[in-house]
Order: sequence, then C-alpha cells, then structure tokens
Amino acid sequence: MFIYHTIAEVRRYVREARSIGQSIGLVPTMGYLHEGHLELVRQAKKRCDKVIVSIFVNPTQFGPGEDLERYPRDLDRDARLSEGVGADVIFNPPVAEMYPAGYCTYVDVERITEHLCGQARPGHFRGVATVVTKLFNIVRPDVAFFGQKDAQQALVINRMVADLDMDLEVVTVTTVREPDGLAMSSRNVYLEPEQRRAALALSRSLRRAEEVFQAGERDAARIRQLVIDMIKKEALLEIDYVEIYSHPELEPIDQIEGPALLALAVKTGRARLIDNTVLR
Amino acid sequence: MFIYHTIAEVRRYVREARSIGQSIGLVPTMGYLHEGHLELVRQAKKRCDKVIVSIFVNPTQFGPGEDLERYPRDLDRDARLSEGVGADVIFNPPVAEMYPAGYCTYVDVERITEHLCGQARPGHFRGVATVVTKLFNIVRPDVAFFGQKDAQQALVINRMVADLDMDLEVVTVTTVREPDGLAMSSRNVYLEPEQRRAALALSRSLRRAEEVFQAGERDAARIRQLVIDMIKKEALLEIDYVEIYSHPELEPIDQIEGPALLALAVKTGRARLIDNTVLR
Repeated sequence: MFIYHTIAEVRRYVREARSIGQSIGLVPTMGYLHEGHLELVRQAKKRCDKVIVSIFVNPTQFGPGEDLERYPRDLDRDARLSEGVGADVIFNPPVAEMYPAGYCTYVDVERITEHLCGQARPGHFRGVATVVTKLFNIVRPDVAFFGQKDAQQALVINRMVADLDMDLEVVTVTTVREPDGLAMSSRNVYLEPEQRRAALALSRSLRRAEEVFQAGERDAARIRQLVIDMIKKEALLEIDYVEIYSHPELEPIDQIEGPALLALAVKTGRARLIDNTVLR
Repeated sequence: MFIYHTIAEVRRYVREARSIGQSIGLVPTMGYLHEGHLELVRQAKKRCDKVIVSIFVNPTQFGPGEDLERYPRDLDRDARLSEGVGADVIFNPPVAEMYPAGYCTYVDVERITEHLCGQARPGHFRGVATVVTKLFNIVRPDVAFFGQKDAQQALVINRMVADLDMDLEVVTVTTVREPDGLAMSSRNVYLEPEQRRAALALSRSLRRAEEVFQAGERDAARIRQLVIDMIKKEALLEIDYVEIYSHPELEPIDQIEGPALLALAVKTGRARLIDNTVLR
C-alpha cells in the first residue's frame, strides 16, 4: 500500500492504473478509522480494481468552537487498518496542499442543507461539498463510497454529483454499529463510560420508531415525540435536533407517505453524536 | 460536424474520441458567435484533436432585469461559422438539460468576484462558475479556451480550476477587435449607429491609458481619471465602472508596480459593454 501526501502523486498513481484499464474506488474519510470506514473500503474493493482512502481532517467543514483541533488522528493505525481490508493507497494531504494561500472557491448545495446538521452547523456542508469536489477532481474515481450514518451528507453528495454532472457513481453503505447498537463514529472516542451508556438511547429510540412505523403509525409529529421522550430520559444527553423529513428531498412532512428520514443529533459532554433511520 | 442537445450524446462522443487517444478542446460560449469566438475555436483546433463548442445562454449568470430574454440567438448561423473554423461538435443543451427541476448546487469563487462585474452584476460569476464546472464535468476537456475580453471571467475560471483541482488547462486568448478598435461582443448587435460610434471611446481610452503607462505613469488614480474623462466626453455613454486592480489577484492598488488590470463597463442604450487592458 502507498501513502501519498501530494495531489501530484495520487494523480500519477491513478493515471497509471487507468492506463491499464483499472477502475478506481474512492473512500473519503477524516481518518481515525473504525469498522464503518473499513466496511466502505471492503465494498469499494468488491467493486473497483484499486481503492484509494483519503484521510483528511477538512478544516472548512468545522465551524468556530467545533472539535477541529482535538479531532482524533492516528495515521499509522489508519494505514494498518486500511491495508488489512485491501486499500491500495492512502491519500493524506497536509492542509496547505488542499487549501493553499489565496484559496477562495466553494461548492454550495442549497435547500437540502437548510435543515438538520446544515442548520445546526452553518457552513458544514459547504466545506463537505467543497472538499469532496476537490477529492473527486484529484482522484476521478469511478465509484465513491459514503456511510449512511451521515445521511444528510450522503444526500448532499448525491445531489451535488447529479447537479454538477460529475461522472461517477455514489454508493451509500449501511451504518455499522457496535454490538449494543451505538453507531460507529470516530467521535465515540470522546465518550466517558456513563455517556457511552446513555448514548445507547439514540439507536434504541430509532429502533422503537421503526417498530411503531411498521405497526402503522404515519404521524411524523408523534414518531418524533416518541424519540424525544426516550432520549430525554437520559439526563446526560442534550438534544440538538430530532427531525423527520421526506427522503431524499428533505422536505418537511406531517404524514409519512413515501420514504422519510428520521435523523437526530445529541450532545453529551464533549461529543456530538448523530444517528438516523429511513422509514419506508 | 455534430450538433448535440443532450449530455449523454456529448459524453458518448468524448468517450469514443478519448478511446482512440484524441485530445479534447472546449470553447464555452453563449452563441451568436463573432470573430472573437471563432479565434477561440481556431486556437483550440491548433492544440486539440477534437473541438467542442458549447452554445448555451446560461440563465444563472443573468441577474433580474438583465438581457436574458433578448440575448441574441442563431444556432444555424453559429453552426455554419463553427464548422468553417474546424469545430467538431456543437453542444447546445436546452435549459432543462442543464438545470432540471430541483437543481440546487452552485460554485462560488470569492474575493476576486467582489469588484468590477462581480459588484455590478451580483450572482453573475456564481452562474458562470457553476455552468463552466458543469461543462468541464460533461466534456472533461484537456484544454478550455476563454477570451481576454471577459478578463475577470478568465481570472475567475483560472482561480476555480486551481482551487478545485480541475485537471485541465485554461487558455486565455487575446481580445479580437473590429478594425476601428471596438471589442467584439455578441451584445454589439444592440448598438444603434450613434451608440456604436460613441462606444469607440472605450478602446480609445484604453489605448491612451497604455500610452501614458508606457511613458512612465504609475499612479492608478490618474490613469483611471484619464479614462473616465475620455469616456465622459461621449454623451451617449454612461459609466458603470472604470477600475484598476492588481492582476491576477484583483486587489486594490494605488501605485502600479506589477501587472494591473484596467477594466471598464459602460452602458449605452440597451447595451452594456465591457473592455479592458492589462498594464505591464
């Protein structure tokens, strides 16, 4: 496996692979890989000849006061784990390689970024769309892989790819969970043991919402309230949002008629956790 | 020569050309081609095996009250002229092919779009950057050609290509002028004979500014005032802006030390005309 820190090196690798007819899969990450990321790499390896994992803690998607500085980083561990599941290249650029002095271009996906994490983290999806556009232009992958845990991000990327006529396929991979239901996240490392236990209310409330939906409940407000009530029972959790929108348009709904995204964000201690399910 | 109206057709053409090792040049235009456009096509043909001319009056780069509806269009004439200078493909999509229902993604180049036409036409360069990104993703050209007449546009495209890591070369081609000095523009068709005569003050004042610059004048305010005074002598002209900025950064300057863009925009009747020169 190769570890590249410059755009030129990755481009050279991709050009050579393409010249012998190989397909390229891209797994964009911020590193500190967990089983969710590794599943993306495995899926990529099934679909593509060569798999490039980008590891870049992207400053433009962090707001003021967020956890950019303390976001966990461990390239050696990430390299070992990536290689173990078949990655061919890690692309780990320094910030100045991605955003050199004078940088001033950004990609904005409107409307579907107005709610949920887009509202809670202004500018977040602008940073995501921008860095993903750059990664797509650097790697020119045939297929790119994203996790369903970041449901709104996956929708934003899909919208951007369609709108800007990017010639690649986006695959969204099911959220990987700990055995007790907690969605895998690099930020789980922030959790103290009691917070970790309290955080199980996230997946538990989503499972309960799925049950009542399957039992016939279609009233979005009632399902939302059920989730809020379950999370509020945990004193260590502070709700950022619990919302239901149409999927994939992310439009407000009262009655669930088509697929609907039930998404939530919760703070506990230093961690902000998100999780979601699509009711259909 | 082929005329395509869908993205799928252009992509198929490009894929086949690439598969036999041919290079692709792109000349993005809004049609109603003049000698300036044709020079872009000639330059493209010199550099690339296949030349694609896009003809698309892009609604997202027009502001409210601008000339989107009456912008001149004549595809038959454009096809004849393009073929005459060696174009291989015209890409002429309908608006719904480029901006289907639900479209919501835009590319923003900041800072260098704050002045000049960016200030006079809010949102204009957002529309330009967005449609050019789309055209680049559709055609994936090796080289794209733009005219120096739209100096700020050329700088915005160059900045965007660098910032977003677009893997192509941008060539800026010298402004083509009528024998009397008027810069070629599709909008010259709006000019009544007296306006056409008055409009010569644009290129005349730029030539005069070049002379005093070459004679040693480095004070930006004095050069600017000289141009303003010459244009104001023409009662039919209304100045939109006359400005001098550093080139290519477009930062305000008092003394001209490095290259500087002297750019102007003037209204006369229904037409808004722009012209510029780089003092170096």
